[in-house]
Amino acid sequence: MNTAPKTTDPASIKVLAFDIFGTVVDWHGSIAREVDAMALGVDGGEFALAWRAGYQPAMRRVMSGELGWTLIDDLHRMILDEILVKFGTSHGIKLLTEPQKRHLNKIWHRLDAWPDSVAGLARLKTKFTICSLSNGNLGLLTNMAKRAGLPWDCVLSAEVFKAYKPDPRTYLGVAKVFDLAPAEVMLVAAHHDDLAAARGCGLHTAYIERPTEFGAAKPKDVSPQEGNTFHAQNLLALADTLGC
Amino acid sequence: MNTAPKTTDPASIKVLAFDIFGTVVDWHGSIAREVDAMALGVDGGEFALAWRAGYQPAMRRVMSGELGWTLIDDLHRMILDEILVKFGTSHGIKLLTEPQKRHLNKIWHRLDAWPDSVAGLARLKTKFTICSLSNGNLGLLTNMAKRAGLPWDCVLSAEVFKAYKPDPRTYLGVAKVFDLAPAEVMLVAAHHDDLAAARGCGLHTAYIERPTEFGAAKPKDVSPQEGNTFHAQNLLALADTLGC
Repeated sequence: MNTAPKTTDPASIKVLAFDIFGTVVDWHGSIAREVDAMALGVDGGEFALAWRAGYQPAMRRVMSGELGWTLIDDLHRMILDEILVKFGTSHGIKLLTEPQKRHLNKIWHRLDAWPDSVAGLARLKTKFTICSLSNGNLGLLTNMAKRAGLPWDCVLSAEVFKAYKPDPRTYLGVAKVFDLAPAEVMLVAAHHDDLAAARGCGLHTAYIERPTEFGAAKPKDVSPQEGNTFHAQNLLALADTLGC
Repeated sequence: MNTAPKTTDPASIKVLAFDIFGTVVDWHGSIAREVDAMALGVDGGEFALAWRAGYQPAMRRVMSGELGWTLIDDLHRMILDEILVKFGTSHGIKLLTEPQKRHLNKIWHRLDAWPDSVAGLARLKTKFTICSLSNGNLGLLTNMAKRAGLPWDCVLSAEVFKAYKPDPRTYLGVAKVFDLAPAEVMLVAAHHDDLAAARGCGLHTAYIERPTEFGAAKPKDVSPQEGNTFHAQNLLALADTLGC
């Protein structure tokens, strides 16, 4: 059931909760650049896509109960170990030491923001409380924010709610943290499935176009879909729309 | 057992976790000023002391299992209702409506920072990851930080760990969030019992003098006690000590 509120008056919205990977930071470009610079003998862009492709299946193993509660840092490491074997067999990737693997795994803490993100968030922060709502763990999100200059009022994560998006506990958890009705919270994300789940919980939603999320060679369809409260090219355009 | 590390090299410390009520913000002065301004017919300073005096007993009811997990906002409201009756009987305090009580209860979200806090935190943030570690709930701490300009890298709270300080899960929880050893984290607080519990978990500790925490009429003994890694007059002095 879609319980999305009908009003689109920004004044009724108090908190903006942001998806992070792909919406605020460029995971594909950041990983591709760092992996290419490591000269491992593998295409950085392909490596980034393979790593990210393991993400949803790994979280499903947690949410199905097959794995106990597991932080994204640990899921990223499980996937990394798998793709290192896969790329080792098919591409002859250079062998990495354990410290090198640990450092590479923390690449998700070192992702670069999209060029509009820091300035856009700073403007949005003047009118709204802004927080992350990511499946990434608190340490990852904090290290990322400190390095990239993301000016969160509060870092929220699946780790706080012990459930991964799209579990309703995450979206409704944000409203509960701030003692607000779901319709006073808006999820901002570049992914329609995330936004649809938030809408199902009564949150407002803003879609952000990130056509090169999967790399310039694999442009994403970013045409508007029905149901979102707002649609914006990037976070500066969202700030314009919301009058910040 | 005191397992406090012996080294005092600030370079070995990565994260500073701050107690909030009394350490970073002036609960007594803030509440006294607002309650006096309400002209309820009660002394604001006495009212603040009575409210705060209910805090530890209320948390003990949660940690003993007598109450289920309860946010500080809700504990503050339980105590407020009790002291309104008490002051009503003994002082003839003005009757408040339910919206007035709800607004008054959120006074804990509107506490003013000590004069050195914002500038001190900004300097400490240049060298360390800085976070709150308070029994206050996430919404309270975020609203407070936004209003007072406290520049946290991350807002951490008992709410994340589902345990109130001095439970070890809170101090060790900070280390775990950041994937650090306990000795890489330092608790900064104006209360020796909080610091002693953190030391017992292997964290470094910094004591901050706040002689007027309970009001100018009730000066607190702020003389140094053994065991703390650092002792500083305020957060600017701590920044000096840590070379920020």
